[in-house]
Amino acid sequence: MLRIITQKTEAEAELRRICDRIHDDQMIHKEATVSEVIQTVRRKGDAALLHYTAEFDRQDITQAELRVSGAELDAAYQQVNSELLKAIETAHARIEAFHRQRVPKSWVQFADKDVVLGKRYTPVDIAGIYIPGGKASYPSTVLMNAVPAMVAGVKRVVMVTPPGGSKTINPAILVAAQVAGVEEIYRVGGAQAIAALAYGTETIPNVDVITGPGNVYVTLAKKQVYGRVGIDSLAGPSEVLIIADKTANPVYVATDMLAQAEHDQMAAAILITTDARLATRVTEEVERLLEQHPRRLLTEKAIAHYGLVVVVENLKIAADLSNLFAPEHLELEVEEPWDLLDSIRHAGAIFLGHATPEAVGDYLAGPNHTLPTSGAARYASALGVETFMKHSSLIQYTPEALKEVAGAIALLTEAEGLPSHGDSVRVRLEDI
Amino acid sequence: MLRIITQKTEAEAELRRICDRIHDDQMIHKEATVSEVIQTVRRKGDAALLHYTAEFDRQDITQAELRVSGAELDAAYQQVNSELLKAIETAHARIEAFHRQRVPKSWVQFADKDVVLGKRYTPVDIAGIYIPGGKASYPSTVLMNAVPAMVAGVKRVVMVTPPGGSKTINPAILVAAQVAGVEEIYRVGGAQAIAALAYGTETIPNVDVITGPGNVYVTLAKKQVYGRVGIDSLAGPSEVLIIADKTANPVYVATDMLAQAEHDQMAAAILITTDARLATRVTEEVERLLEQHPRRLLTEKAIAHYGLVVVVENLKIAADLSNLFAPEHLELEVEEPWDLLDSIRHAGAIFLGHATPEAVGDYLAGPNHTLPTSGAARYASALGVETFMKHSSLIQYTPEALKEVAGAIALLTEAEGLPSHGDSVRVRLEDI
Repeated sequence: MLRIITQKTEAEAELRRICDRIHDDQMIHKEATVSEVIQTVRRKGDAALLHYTAEFDRQDITQAELRVSGAELDAAYQQVNSELLKAIETAHARIEAFHRQRVPKSWVQFADKDVVLGKRYTPVDIAGIYIPGGKASYPSTVLMNAVPAMVAGVKRVVMVTPPGGSKTINPAILVAAQVAGVEEIYRVGGAQAIAALAYGTETIPNVDVITGPGNVYVTLAKKQVYGRVGIDSLAGPSEVLIIADKTANPVYVATDMLAQAEHDQMAAAILITTDARLATRVTEEVERLLEQHPRRLLTEKAIAHYGLVVVVENLKIAADLSNLFAPEHLELEVEEPWDLLDSIRHAGAIFLGHATPEAVGDYLAGPNHTLPTSGAARYASALGVETFMKHSSLIQYTPEALKEVAGAIALLTEAEGLPSHGDSVRVRLEDI
Repeated sequence: MLRIITQKTEAEAELRRICDRIHDDQMIHKEATVSEVIQTVRRKGDAALLHYTAEFDRQDITQAELRVSGAELDAAYQQVNSELLKAIETAHARIEAFHRQRVPKSWVQFADKDVVLGKRYTPVDIAGIYIPGGKASYPSTVLMNAVPAMVAGVKRVVMVTPPGGSKTINPAILVAAQVAGVEEIYRVGGAQAIAALAYGTETIPNVDVITGPGNVYVTLAKKQVYGRVGIDSLAGPSEVLIIADKTANPVYVATDMLAQAEHDQMAAAILITTDARLATRVTEEVERLLEQHPRRLLTEKAIAHYGLVVVVENLKIAADLSNLFAPEHLELEVEEPWDLLDSIRHAGAIFLGHATPEAVGDYLAGPNHTLPTSGAARYASALGVETFMKHSSLIQYTPEALKEVAGAIALLTEAEGLPSHGDSVRVRLEDI
């Protein structure tokens, strides 16, 4: 079922098809729905949130129930066993430690004795985190979004997540939020939650930045409100690309591919290998593991549509194909992964060597698991502390410094036809 | 004509109105036009570019004329006088020196003896720079976009700009591009140029990141192609907010306000001062200067609609109002600007003291003049080298390190219902 391709041009075409799998025109008709939801929330506030929650999530909540109560937050700790709590705390500590490194710092300096230049970094005032509901309701997602906001120094971090059956929210989500320091949580999801965070309602504050993954409606809503607020990225379905040589273990490779495919029927799992025998053994192993997979149907669909094995002549070609795809996750299951790294130009996260499955990065290695998908690694990076910060340029001139550049500025303002720009320098020089 | 407000709540309402001046619903009907242009360029390539250039720019160019020729690039040097060339070179040198500072660097480290973590920074492969035509065709814009791309190490930087009369392009633009090292220039503008950069045509390559300002069609097109490519920001009309105390010179303040207003009839110029007498003198001075302004009509409109003077009791209130507005440019024309800085949370660029008009930053102080507008300084920063770079997270575990975290990962994968994630760790531990 997993196809093996040996032709480079065929591989390129397949990689392009898989990379483009969400740039489908089927999204276009959903844009109008999302736009209507956003406009309605802007006009009607909380009332619209309750209406859409009843319509889309089939949960009748009241305005007072929008915010998750302190009692519910407390109760969540009772519903999560102490071992899981400890695992969440372990993950939190490691993610925090990584994100605390190289946080942008303000600086100023004298460019010369009469000129001060610098950059001043500050956190956003309020951040909003979207956490999906249903099957994809993950405590790890909470940590990966909340920790960088907290490390950035954001004073107010709010979370939105849709209610499940009986209006409840997954207790592991509520516990993870509290471990990360987030206690302002609203029971609303979908495009309506994004609209609420962008424009504010009676209950929910409008925020400066919205982060977090979601379904296609959430993603389209984030794109529509971008510009009114900042967003992290437009997340698509997950993907892994594995480069393997003859030293790779076919069982590891096959399991890693399934660990990607089991997310979602749109997930992609790609192997590029220099070893034809490995290619065959991995496909056999994938087949075997699928038979007993608890999420078989969905996983099988992902493998059938977006699974791929490519056999290439050498690792240089493997790296070229990987750069074309610009994978979210790249595993280098080769003898010398650090040597191969030099040929890699685009990837969200890179897992080096045979003992580093993507799962360590998904949960607790430290680096963020919110990564660019669908080729966005060509220009974008992991979610990070920077997502919740911005800087102001700082400029100070003395009259003497201004005098020195006045001639050049006069010529440029003249060339651009902006007289008052020139005057703003000129009037200041009349006084010295 | 310039209104003076002394009531804080009225000032807040006015600042909100001015901040929201482009979030008008009049943009919505333009979205469909832009979407059609993009789809047509995707389908028809160069032919669509020639068609739209004839329709929108009234210039009949051929496919061969899309790319600016080497002869035209050479000729531009003859049309720019040597003093202006020198001014462009001076600006280039200063902008480059600033952007070369603190360029993100890759790093790796041992998180413990069995775990390597890091970040690997790389430039994008191809960047596309949009330069407006007509009245707003500025060589400074070319430098501010091209320099950070070059400093980032982008191998291929292409520029697009619409043709003016007789199909020509402003020679100062062509010279500035060459000074910055950009020689691949295409004669096309508007939404069609953005579509070409996002999807590619027979002549124009598809790029990874598009930067640069433009009219509302260009901005809407950038928003629509965002996700397919990276973009710098959604630029709105320019704005300055000046905080001044009694030490400020009313002529400086008035000239700085006009230097903003002369850009565009949507530009905003705001003064917040603790000195009522200064407020009156600035309004008088603005009135006087407007009478003889070479761009009077447009500048007067901007001042009438989006000019504002607010008198406040103290500098703390001035800072609060400024933070509400989150200005693109903030001038601190006060006695102790560095003290006031502590109260400022959001601003694109901050100009400190009486001898630092915004114009020095617009042209050659060094920091980028492409800044967040319309309140986007709450979450966004100046265009920079980072706009043209991205990083990959690096993770390497040894089997021993993996063993240590296996328990926590197993619990988390179970809680999230992702069995193969757990298996991907488990199979690796069977071998040690």
